[in-house]
Amino acid sequence: MLESLLTPRSIAVIGASRTPGKVGHDVVANLVQGGFAGPLVPVNPSADEVCGFKCYPKVSDYPGEIDLGVIVVPPKHVLAAAENLIDAGAKAIITITAGFKEVGPEGAKLEAELAALCRGRGVRLMGPNVLGVINTHHKMNASFAHHLPKPGDISVLSQSGAICTAILDWAAGRHLGLAKLISIGNKADVSEIDLLYTLAEDPETRVIVGYLESIVSGDAFIRAAEEAASRKPVVIFKAGTTSAGVKAASSHTGSLAGANVAYGAAFKRSGVVRADTFEALFDYATAFAMQPLPKGNRVAIVTNAGGPGIIAADAVENSGMSVAQLDSARAQALRSKLPAAASVGNPIDVLGDADPERYALAVQAALEDDRVDAVIVILTPQAMTKPAETARAIARFAGGQKPLLACFMGGSDVMPARAELVLSRLPDYTSPERAVSALKAMVDYAAWRNRPPRIITRFPVNRRRVERIILRQSKLDLKQVLEPQAKDILRAYDFTVPDGRIAYQASEAVDVAEMVGYPVVIKVVSPDIIHKSDMGGVKLNLGTASAVRDAYDLMLLRIKRLAPQARIEGIYVEKMAMPAQEVILGMTRDPQFGPMLMFGLGGIFVEVMKDVTFYLAPITFDDAMQMLEGTKSYALLKGARGHAGADITEIARGIQRISQLVTDFPQIAEMDINPFMVGPVGAKAVAADARITLSSFEVKK
Amino acid sequence: MLESLLTPRSIAVIGASRTPGKVGHDVVANLVQGGFAGPLVPVNPSADEVCGFKCYPKVSDYPGEIDLGVIVVPPKHVLAAAENLIDAGAKAIITITAGFKEVGPEGAKLEAELAALCRGRGVRLMGPNVLGVINTHHKMNASFAHHLPKPGDISVLSQSGAICTAILDWAAGRHLGLAKLISIGNKADVSEIDLLYTLAEDPETRVIVGYLESIVSGDAFIRAAEEAASRKPVVIFKAGTTSAGVKAASSHTGSLAGANVAYGAAFKRSGVVRADTFEALFDYATAFAMQPLPKGNRVAIVTNAGGPGIIAADAVENSGMSVAQLDSARAQALRSKLPAAASVGNPIDVLGDADPERYALAVQAALEDDRVDAVIVILTPQAMTKPAETARAIARFAGGQKPLLACFMGGSDVMPARAELVLSRLPDYTSPERAVSALKAMVDYAAWRNRPPRIITRFPVNRRRVERIILRQSKLDLKQVLEPQAKDILRAYDFTVPDGRIAYQASEAVDVAEMVGYPVVIKVVSPDIIHKSDMGGVKLNLGTASAVRDAYDLMLLRIKRLAPQARIEGIYVEKMAMPAQEVILGMTRDPQFGPMLMFGLGGIFVEVMKDVTFYLAPITFDDAMQMLEGTKSYALLKGARGHAGADITEIARGIQRISQLVTDFPQIAEMDINPFMVGPVGAKAVAADARITLSSFEVKK
Repeated sequence: MLESLLTPRSIAVIGASRTPGKVGHDVVANLVQGGFAGPLVPVNPSADEVCGFKCYPKVSDYPGEIDLGVIVVPPKHVLAAAENLIDAGAKAIITITAGFKEVGPEGAKLEAELAALCRGRGVRLMGPNVLGVINTHHKMNASFAHHLPKPGDISVLSQSGAICTAILDWAAGRHLGLAKLISIGNKADVSEIDLLYTLAEDPETRVIVGYLESIVSGDAFIRAAEEAASRKPVVIFKAGTTSAGVKAASSHTGSLAGANVAYGAAFKRSGVVRADTFEALFDYATAFAMQPLPKGNRVAIVTNAGGPGIIAADAVENSGMSVAQLDSARAQALRSKLPAAASVGNPIDVLGDADPERYALAVQAALEDDRVDAVIVILTPQAMTKPAETARAIARFAGGQKPLLACFMGGSDVMPARAELVLSRLPDYTSPERAVSALKAMVDYAAWRNRPPRIITRFPVNRRRVERIILRQSKLDLKQVLEPQAKDILRAYDFTVPDGRIAYQASEAVDVAEMVGYPVVIKVVSPDIIHKSDMGGVKLNLGTASAVRDAYDLMLLRIKRLAPQARIEGIYVEKMAMPAQEVILGMTRDPQFGPMLMFGLGGIFVEVMKDVTFYLAPITFDDAMQMLEGTKSYALLKGARGHAGADITEIARGIQRISQLVTDFPQIAEMDINPFMVGPVGAKAVAADARITLSSFEVKK
Repeated sequence: MLESLLTPRSIAVIGASRTPGKVGHDVVANLVQGGFAGPLVPVNPSADEVCGFKCYPKVSDYPGEIDLGVIVVPPKHVLAAAENLIDAGAKAIITITAGFKEVGPEGAKLEAELAALCRGRGVRLMGPNVLGVINTHHKMNASFAHHLPKPGDISVLSQSGAICTAILDWAAGRHLGLAKLISIGNKADVSEIDLLYTLAEDPETRVIVGYLESIVSGDAFIRAAEEAASRKPVVIFKAGTTSAGVKAASSHTGSLAGANVAYGAAFKRSGVVRADTFEALFDYATAFAMQPLPKGNRVAIVTNAGGPGIIAADAVENSGMSVAQLDSARAQALRSKLPAAASVGNPIDVLGDADPERYALAVQAALEDDRVDAVIVILTPQAMTKPAETARAIARFAGGQKPLLACFMGGSDVMPARAELVLSRLPDYTSPERAVSALKAMVDYAAWRNRPPRIITRFPVNRRRVERIILRQSKLDLKQVLEPQAKDILRAYDFTVPDGRIAYQASEAVDVAEMVGYPVVIKVVSPDIIHKSDMGGVKLNLGTASAVRDAYDLMLLRIKRLAPQARIEGIYVEKMAMPAQEVILGMTRDPQFGPMLMFGLGGIFVEVMKDVTFYLAPITFDDAMQMLEGTKSYALLKGARGHAGADITEIARGIQRISQLVTDFPQIAEMDINPFMVGPVGAKAVAADARITLSSFEVKK
């Protein structure tokens, strides 16, 4: 895939220029300086040669075949340039030129035409509005960035050209190699999706790094990312996390979800390692590129100073990993080789005067210990410290089965050591906390790689019944599903729902109550009343026929006073659910990633504490259990002081049933089951109230 | 204070050596190379000269006066060396030698003798076990660290010598100047307390930076830190935050508090800026040293690339600051001077080809705008970017009234610019997030500086009554205060407590119930039963005499079965408190910082969600309100959906009363009022249950 884009045999530059500083010149110069091996064809009607290469007035004048075309002419000439390139045989085009979608509707139109042209003729288009594409292993710098990094095994895709230049500059300063660096710009054709698939298969790429501001398709992204993450680490920084569009939501679930939550859920599902800061992007990527994944989360720390050792140990504990203790025999053996004042506890303190050999002894002992899954080596530049020699001494252990990360603190004194470390493929961090964060990312990714196979349960349900209800709603153009129908939908998906029925007069309400058994609850059924409680539209715990009759009459009286315009369909009478632990299950459809399932404990926990978790549908039983465990209030469910434990598997199955329902029926836009009443282990949980909103039917047609 | 230590007129080095690499040599060499201007007196019986200075066999052989002595001889000779120095007139001694308290009891004894000697003769002792002391403005490097940093205005005190060397090395790499760097080691005499006072008054120090693992005294620390922070920023990194000692706690408050929480409360009280990571220490310090404090939290962002601008805006929003919008007239004026594609929204995007002048225009416009409190300038090194020239262009605005922070991203291309920025006193960060964090630290510190005066209310109380109760407990050696007495203590401090009395038989219980009025609650009173509910020792809501009688008999029967050994003092009968919002107020005494007050919403909010805040006593009304506002569940108190608002001032006053009680009575080790029942505005809150534990009486004697 994308061979002509990433490893072209020949390249034409349309708009090549002889004036240094102009993009048309710099692209050609960069290709030349980078050492691109294939034919290079500058095109410009008013030049004979550019950077020592013969320049052609038109690309069709060039006798050979063109594989990749790079366009740097002004926007109005881009279409013609692309057409000429395609005529000359180009299989891929990079349009560096800006001034398209990003400047307004006219640019967007031009961009669409360009994309349509390329797509129609089977040519892949990168851009427009990009820095270009770099492939170090192919000696290709088809960009206007001056740096060609050393060949390495991290590939970068970035939606921001400026971020690309900052990364290139930074990598140069850190002696870090890159495989490919791809600026994806406006993504008129080639997007992060194509690149995830391509880089997943690229043998020169060990780690994929992405800077994204948006994605073209949620579903396609998840598939591509999961595919890529199954083969190699994918580390992504998502910018624009707080600018979540405000969305009118009629459910709790909807109001608590947002783009940032959705991206989090999508990354989690697909195994993407999320970098929360820009610096974390490469902190993580270098660890992944240089070191093997850890088998567990027990971390040994080797240090020549107490203070940084404490900092590292704190960070390990705070991250949820654990500070490892050496096996006692090994600890004793190590102690016998170290000075008396050294400590073989963890941190292993080799003391301020530690020479390279002492470091090597300690690192080796830690790496060989079965109780240790990973080692962090900290060095502070003290009077006797030899940073570069120490780097070389520990580098002997860099290629093992367990990750080894370094934290050489300081500045100029440790600078030569940093270069040694990078050369030995030992990731190096400027602070203990950053080394620990990188290790935690490795631990989490390793856990994802070892996840059990995802088996989506399909419960036997009455799908036809739901189809009929939705069809009827659609005929009546009713987006809000009223409680009787919502309950019917849940019953069809085998939820336990209290026995109940709609009544149209008081005597009928009493009949229903007698049938289902007291106590009952009565609720108004009206398309115009969403918050029933606020309008006096709910009356709980009615124990007798006369109580039902009184409540019925009073409810209608009050609602007619408070909301004279509301259409009343009737009063729903149902058996009171037994008191139990109340939880909320819900679903909202993210515009990018589709159905997001929500779980939270009832009432205050959701409304005030926002103690909820989200997961993308479809969901497995294990995923659902993880959702429960992800809330702080989980302790309550299991049975905290004064609270009996609830049947947790009933909740997990409830979430799975919602997952199946909303996957079967994309027409369901949002839903809450609130409360979902969960009893003790073995008891059926009861969906006491439900709210379902369908998407607008016009959209479906 | 500490003049002889920090600005000595003359220095003797006991244990001077001619062998490079030995500490005794390096200290002399560093003093010479640093350019120390006063007499320098190496002392060593077996050398004639060290580093070109005449060497004396004994310090008494030197004819002049010694101001500061530096000791590097082995531990066993240190006492004699100190004595000789004092005889020779030394007013301060730095003991670099290690091998004291940190190696065991013998070393601790020697250290105590050394400290006693110095204290007895009025000499200040720094160390033992230190790197040394550096004062750049005095051209003094009395340490064995090779780097003498440039003179600057940040002073560092560090409990870890290795951290000092890392900081020195790092500062050299960043072109950053320091004022003083002081390794405080074992703190046998001079500690962080002395240094906070001294550096607070030091005109050469604009910012105090501290790395601490422990403190010598909580109270003294808070006083010294508050004094220092009132004059200049104090930024501290506290290592060892997760190693909180496990402490047997009999109260909720005790079990939720810990050393880390206590340090947080102490820093907050005293205005210390806490660095949560090691890198944040200098990220913050450089901002404070170089730029003025902001007047508010509205941040303008100037950038030459969209991506990093988004990252910065996200970070600003996440931090709780706000992204500023320029005044519309000013925005229009700026727009007219920028290219059409530039954006004058916020971020202000000056585009990828921005020259230094364009940056200057945008920065100036942002700084001059009344709606902007601070400006962050982001630069990515793109093809046309001139980092160093841009640094110079914006440096013109560095000395203004509003903070200006830079984030020049990348590596080698922006390196020359970094040096320019530091020279112009513009703090520079490698990522937008770090710049934003530093700015947030400035905003928080500025808010602390502008805090209202702290007025501690003293309520009229019956202190004598509490004295008598505690005296009686002490005579009986009872640490646990039982409910009747605990309620008496609360009544004495004017808490509203339900009417109640202890009963010794069922008929008496009925009499009390008739007196206080139904419904009542009855509770067992026993020094052996702490968790009364778990033992069936609480019965709520008894509405009739027969209910009281039955409950009384049943309670005694059951408890005798469940806890036959428990001593039963009687059964406490009191009027049921009206249902209301339940909160918990509490206090636990931190070993370092003394009484820490706690607030949280009742039950689950404390036990499961740990949604609590702590504050050090004594507390003001404003502080107490901040405690309430610091919890997530605060929304509930104010009256969230379906919950009426509670009388918040009643809670704040309750916390103030506890503050007064535990300040008056240091014998109170821990207490909870749980639940504290808070009614609607205007209603008295009721202390429905209370648990008070006194400290062991032996300790008091």
